[in-house]
Amino acid sequence: MPILVMKFGGTSVANIDRIQRAARRVSAEVAKGYDVIVVVSAMSGETNKLVGYVNDTAPLYDAREYDAIVSSGENVTAGLLALRLQEMDVPARSWQGWQVPLQTNSAHGAARIMTIPTENIMRKFAEGMKVAVVAGFQGISPEGRITTLGRGGSDTTAVAFAAAFDAERCDIYTDVDGVYTTDPRICSDARKLDRITFEEMLELASQGAKVLQTRSVELAMRYKVRLRVLSSFEEPSDTSGTLVCDEEEIMESNVVSGIAFSREEAKMTLQGVADKPGIAAAIFGPLADSGVNVDMIVQNISDEGHTDMTFSCPVDQVLRAEKAINDARLRGDYTFDELICDSNVAKISVVGIGMRSHAGVAATMFRALASESVNIKVITTSEIKISVLIDRKYMELAVQALHDAFGLDKKA
Amino acid sequence: MPILVMKFGGTSVANIDRIQRAARRVSAEVAKGYDVIVVVSAMSGETNKLVGYVNDTAPLYDAREYDAIVSSGENVTAGLLALRLQEMDVPARSWQGWQVPLQTNSAHGAARIMTIPTENIMRKFAEGMKVAVVAGFQGISPEGRITTLGRGGSDTTAVAFAAAFDAERCDIYTDVDGVYTTDPRICSDARKLDRITFEEMLELASQGAKVLQTRSVELAMRYKVRLRVLSSFEEPSDTSGTLVCDEEEIMESNVVSGIAFSREEAKMTLQGVADKPGIAAAIFGPLADSGVNVDMIVQNISDEGHTDMTFSCPVDQVLRAEKAINDARLRGDYTFDELICDSNVAKISVVGIGMRSHAGVAATMFRALASESVNIKVITTSEIKISVLIDRKYMELAVQALHDAFGLDKKA
Repeated sequence: MPILVMKFGGTSVANIDRIQRAARRVSAEVAKGYDVIVVVSAMSGETNKLVGYVNDTAPLYDAREYDAIVSSGENVTAGLLALRLQEMDVPARSWQGWQVPLQTNSAHGAARIMTIPTENIMRKFAEGMKVAVVAGFQGISPEGRITTLGRGGSDTTAVAFAAAFDAERCDIYTDVDGVYTTDPRICSDARKLDRITFEEMLELASQGAKVLQTRSVELAMRYKVRLRVLSSFEEPSDTSGTLVCDEEEIMESNVVSGIAFSREEAKMTLQGVADKPGIAAAIFGPLADSGVNVDMIVQNISDEGHTDMTFSCPVDQVLRAEKAINDARLRGDYTFDELICDSNVAKISVVGIGMRSHAGVAATMFRALASESVNIKVITTSEIKISVLIDRKYMELAVQALHDAFGLDKKA
Repeated sequence: MPILVMKFGGTSVANIDRIQRAARRVSAEVAKGYDVIVVVSAMSGETNKLVGYVNDTAPLYDAREYDAIVSSGENVTAGLLALRLQEMDVPARSWQGWQVPLQTNSAHGAARIMTIPTENIMRKFAEGMKVAVVAGFQGISPEGRITTLGRGGSDTTAVAFAAAFDAERCDIYTDVDGVYTTDPRICSDARKLDRITFEEMLELASQGAKVLQTRSVELAMRYKVRLRVLSSFEEPSDTSGTLVCDEEEIMESNVVSGIAFSREEAKMTLQGVADKPGIAAAIFGPLADSGVNVDMIVQNISDEGHTDMTFSCPVDQVLRAEKAINDARLRGDYTFDELICDSNVAKISVVGIGMRSHAGVAATMFRALASESVNIKVITTSEIKISVLIDRKYMELAVQALHDAFGLDKKA
């Protein structure tokens, strides 16, 4: 039997009715002749609730316990969807990460998938099971502790299963009907894209577009997993959603494909750091070890042997970052004059594979922001992306201005 | 180091504040020199919520999925308590059932504990861990599926750990300050017992007193585990709570120790069953296989080769019982004229080890009920207990009348 992987996000399994709806979608694919692996998220709100418990209990938590706690929401959904399928006479059972076992490394809270043995689930398919419902987002470490893959890790789980089981396709069911040029809640002109390249999706995902987790797109690109994003609230057709695919499959596109943003960013600056070889490693090594996801890094020109080092990270990791920095200073790893933290910034990124062959994208972007008097605090660029940090309060304004400036409301 | 087992029920870990309070209690025992194994329930309300999800999804559920779903609440509490202890600089980690591994048989929903290997946890104690926080109520089957021990199974988990680790004592922290002659919410004269025998506690527990799960008391009796029930909301002293102990340790006691009751009972009668050898097995075998907890069984005198068979079970298992009976009838296992179900009964039990040497307890009981015009529907007795089924609406009245009739408000 060909294998299909389907993934349902939190809003698609938010309550019993929606789990029932998801079960009907799964059953329809079984009727077409597929053996189906369904990857589920926690009911929407559950994971946030659990993370809230953790933060209330221990702000500087042990990531191993965090993982054991927050992974529980997915187990509930997996069991419920399996039960619902059984009620519809579709042979199904649930699998928790450690039962597969989905083996990861020990990087708790952001673990990497090492291997997904297929034997256990394939044996059950051979015995007549039609649907394996897998709890997303979680795995098991070499030490036998539960790990999680980071927020949105269920997408990564789904793509990894699609790769491991050589699935025909990986359908990501979510609460939006595809990938948009930007978030329609912020910009009413936002337009759904029928197709987008892996590369662009990767930049959009990593720059805050919440449709797909970055790593899931990376994985899909590496293993050539056909990835479709579609709404669990509409009856799907062959043209539903957005197909994430290779560049060759896309005939025409705008220079810029989309505007991504991330609201809850913080900017931290270490002033007066001794500028010597190895200083960056001394600063960012302990931050990485503490699980801080450092994003942009900017180093100012050195002045008399001292320099300012600026980086950004998610706002909710600021405490953790401050502790890592102060611990390193106490250990004598490095010295600095002052640590300045700005928790009120947002990041905006302009993404497009066409940038590689078109000049002037940066100029258009900066001009559009300047015309709205939005001050740029940090700039970084890649081959197909330009990102800036700005004051959080200007975020919506900036997104709308850029969407307009690049004509994203119109098809190429 | 001596080992102490502590168990915190759902109301004792109902929110972050209470988890913090529990952590302080645990820390106080660590300070006394104990290595502590803490067994935790789910935050109160969580398990009911999950059971509700299951029933809404699939009323006739696969018990394996049920177990995978409802066991998740305990995992959350275990992780949170471990985190809280770490915050207090008490070395702690959480253990889910499959990690210990607490091995059970495959009777999902009501699994029996087979073994609790002590090596993993003892090794961690040897390495300096002071507290193992164990998710109660759950284990792992020989097939590698998650099992649960039945409602209240965390008590059983705690006692089983106390036996396996040869603990000095097993303290059960709950929302009441001990075992009472009956539920004080129903009878304001109810009195706390300082000590009670294992045997009496067993009957009270199995007859609906919700302080301790029956099997936990059985286990404690078998392995001579010193069991103390006490409130998590009071600072404990050496005389707090109720000690469950051997008969010899109790100098004087009332003839009757307590009145237990169970509100949500159902009475089912199979009318006109062919009365032949093996008929009881034919009826109750499939019920047991379906996971129906049959309690009282009464068979009326046979009349011309036919008989009426009456049994009681929890109200929420009526659907399941009806299905098992109708399936058995369709298979031709047995025949009957009619299945009558009364879902509006309650069970009341009078319990006391003194009954063995005192006559007239039954007479006093029936007289007290008659004087309140309460009709008795079914009667069963054991050496130290008499139970009756009555209309649910008379339950409170009957409990108060019996408490009064046996003078339970006064110490012996």
